[in-house]
Amino acid sequence: MSLRLRHLTTLENLPRATIERLLDRAVSMRDACAHGTRKLDLLAGRTILNLFFEPSTRTRTSFELAARRLGADVINFDIGFSSTSKGEELYDTLHTLEAMHLDAIVVRHKTSGTPDELVRHAMSGVSVINAGDGNRAHPTQGLLDALTIRQHRPDFENLTVTICGDVKHSRVARSDVHALSALGTKNIRLCGPAALMPADTELPHCQRFTDFDQAIEGADAIIMLRLQKERMAATDLPDEAAYFQRFGLDKRRLALAAKGCLVMHPGPINRGIEIASEVADGAQSRILEQVGNGVFVRMAVLGEMLAR
Amino acid sequence: MSLRLRHLTTLENLPRATIERLLDRAVSMRDACAHGTRKLDLLAGRTILNLFFEPSTRTRTSFELAARRLGADVINFDIGFSSTSKGEELYDTLHTLEAMHLDAIVVRHKTSGTPDELVRHAMSGVSVINAGDGNRAHPTQGLLDALTIRQHRPDFENLTVTICGDVKHSRVARSDVHALSALGTKNIRLCGPAALMPADTELPHCQRFTDFDQAIEGADAIIMLRLQKERMAATDLPDEAAYFQRFGLDKRRLALAAKGCLVMHPGPINRGIEIASEVADGAQSRILEQVGNGVFVRMAVLGEMLAR
Amino acid sequence: MSLRLRHLTTLENLPRATIERLLDRAVSMRDACAHGTRKLDLLAGRTILNLFFEPSTRTRTSFELAARRLGADVINFDIGFSSTSKGEELYDTLHTLEAMHLDAIVVRHKTSGTPDELVRHAMSGVSVINAGDGNRAHPTQGLLDALTIRQHRPDFENLTVTICGDVKHSRVARSDVHALSALGTKNIRLCGPAALMPADTELPHCQRFTDFDQAIEGADAIIMLRLQKERMAATDLPDEAAYFQRFGLDKRRLALAAKGCLVMHPGPINRGIEIASEVADGAQSRILEQVGNGVFVRMAVLGEMLAR
Repeated sequence: MSLRLRHLTTLENLPRATIERLLDRAVSMRDACAHGTRKLDLLAGRTILNLFFEPSTRTRTSFELAARRLGADVINFDIGFSSTSKGEELYDTLHTLEAMHLDAIVVRHKTSGTPDELVRHAMSGVSVINAGDGNRAHPTQGLLDALTIRQHRPDFENLTVTICGDVKHSRVARSDVHALSALGTKNIRLCGPAALMPADTELPHCQRFTDFDQAIEGADAIIMLRLQKERMAATDLPDEAAYFQRFGLDKRRLALAAKGCLVMHPGPINRGIEIASEVADGAQSRILEQVGNGVFVRMAVLGEMLAR
Repeated sequence: MSLRLRHLTTLENLPRATIERLLDRAVSMRDACAHGTRKLDLLAGRTILNLFFEPSTRTRTSFELAARRLGADVINFDIGFSSTSKGEELYDTLHTLEAMHLDAIVVRHKTSGTPDELVRHAMSGVSVINAGDGNRAHPTQGLLDALTIRQHRPDFENLTVTICGDVKHSRVARSDVHALSALGTKNIRLCGPAALMPADTELPHCQRFTDFDQAIEGADAIIMLRLQKERMAATDLPDEAAYFQRFGLDKRRLALAAKGCLVMHPGPINRGIEIASEVADGAQSRILEQVGNGVFVRMAVLGEMLAR
Repeated sequence: MSLRLRHLTTLENLPRATIERLLDRAVSMRDACAHGTRKLDLLAGRTILNLFFEPSTRTRTSFELAARRLGADVINFDIGFSSTSKGEELYDTLHTLEAMHLDAIVVRHKTSGTPDELVRHAMSGVSVINAGDGNRAHPTQGLLDALTIRQHRPDFENLTVTICGDVKHSRVARSDVHALSALGTKNIRLCGPAALMPADTELPHCQRFTDFDQAIEGADAIIMLRLQKERMAATDLPDEAAYFQRFGLDKRRLALAAKGCLVMHPGPINRGIEIASEVADGAQSRILEQVGNGVFVRMAVLGEMLAR
């Protein structure tokens, strides 16, 4: 049995057994909730603090719900989002929070590596959970995407998964690749405008495409990324319609994928930019399943770290 | 016995029996709280989300207190108030929240009809409670006003109630009229500057006045509305003093009403604009009673919808 | 035995016995928490509202944690910080909150005396706790500083304590002086730029210094105040380096103090402006101990006021 996690800043280099244990725990959480146990007391008396330097109501709410359903208290530490908080100022905030005897800090920060900085500077038993740092990692998103795929296609070794959009700036894409690779998926395809693809040295075991039709052919799951509209300028695509024509997922393209291909998106979706409504709302869409799994995965992570 | 409510978006067309049951429930809540039971566990394990697209600390706090006193968890979903969230974007937010397995969404939105849109698009068992939409409805305010009146004058059939101020833009006025009409009140008078009165086709069974002295004569209850100062420009009243002279409630005017006439206001009050301090703080004022009843009415609504 | 507190707006004129009882209670809270009782139910069913007219995430979080660890519910009433809320508008807010049957209001306001105004206008059994008003008082900070000193040096009568920085605008300094004086400390030294010292008529029993080297000589505890950078202009010090040279606490200066001199700061610290990192992070620093004691002192105050 692998070691119990104390922090979760990235899925990179996490053993397959640990990821599988977390997914199994998430399933247990879902089953407990499905059987009418609306609230567990696994974390009664524990306090979890949300420390968001970037706004994200959805992710913060998902963590808050997860913590509350385990009986923990949740504090939202309202950092002004204009704050650049880094270096000594950041560590002082960390140490202040540690001195208040919190059990875990859920952190989101625009600078890659900030959660690891917190882990390195933590002095007490506080656990650090990364809720997204720069373009580097969003490990609970990687886990919930893996869980969503596993529910339908547990044979990760045989899967072809296509990730499409602004891969370069996407922490979701990186954490997805880490989770899928650890679970044995060999065929991971990255697709997007050349200007929005990561450097060749990054994620070397993934195949790269700039033609979405080719990237989607035979895929068992497609993970569409959210396009930050201000980044469209970096591409050679003049407008949203042009972007959608080259990299949008519509019915025609979905037909190129394998039968029953799962359609996924971390949300919130830009309809008509990266995905057509007919696909987002269609029978193959797993987007809302991802949201539900997000709460269970976060319950699993919090439970693993903080249960006595 | 009428059906248990699943949603509450308006009091319009709600059967008298339903309104009376909710008021009776509110009285039970008040009695339970008065007898030292500070916290009930009727909604233990339930999660209620506040989704406010318009700021309203008072109403949000009242709902939050109501939910907590019933043992529910409360999440504040902090939409940026600059967000215009509507249409597909609004429904995507709704579906995301549903996927997180919430039990109820308390929504305030500047666009009339938004809560009904949410009801129409809801896919799961989530309940929607309108905390105010545009100028259309504020049903818990209508209920708490009815409860406040009933405590003093349960003979709704015999009452004359005057509603004064910016009736045109007031969701409070509309929900008050719906509650009072359902409970049998025949004499409802609307009063305000011509520019701030609703179209003649609306609320046809109410009497209309532009002379406040006439409107107040013999009234058993007066509900003063809050004036949005930016709307004063639409009237032919040059300033606050002029507005107060024509439509402000002072001691002289209150003397024209029936003996013991109840003075009400949804708050926060503008002293010296729509109401004189001597009246707002006087013996006939029920304004703080309204605030207290607000919590009990919201407990009643949440209990009706969500108790197992 | 002195009377149980109902409100806490200032430590001025509080009997020594009351202050000692609160510190003893804080120690009991710390002991209970240290022995694994992560959550007490002393205040189960009680509701505490944070009413902050000035932003202060740290203090608000400390009060929120204290309340939650005693089993109380906490509501954050999000006043827009641009609101000047005073006079009738402030009292109307107070009465509205009282009508909702809250047990305590924790208030921070930029205007000195606001918490006492609330006490004077309160109509019900609600308790008012000052979380900082203008430059007047921050009583829980005074208590937590006294507790921090007492843990190391319970012989208050023999101590020399130096408070350095912008004393003129500091509510922390005033509450520290009140606490220390009540506990018997005779030698309290105030030090800062002439323009940032309080009027001579204020705090007459303290010694005054403008030379920090002299002020620190033989001190048993040094409390450094946070400099609001916009106030530096009022001094004759052209920049941060110049301020630090005259009033910053570094290793050289600390060596002038008594052996084992405690280094304190209410936080957040400005490194290199009022305190050197080597001192803030050094062996004599009690800054994080202060933060931890803050939660226990606030538990003590809330428990004293609200336990049945």
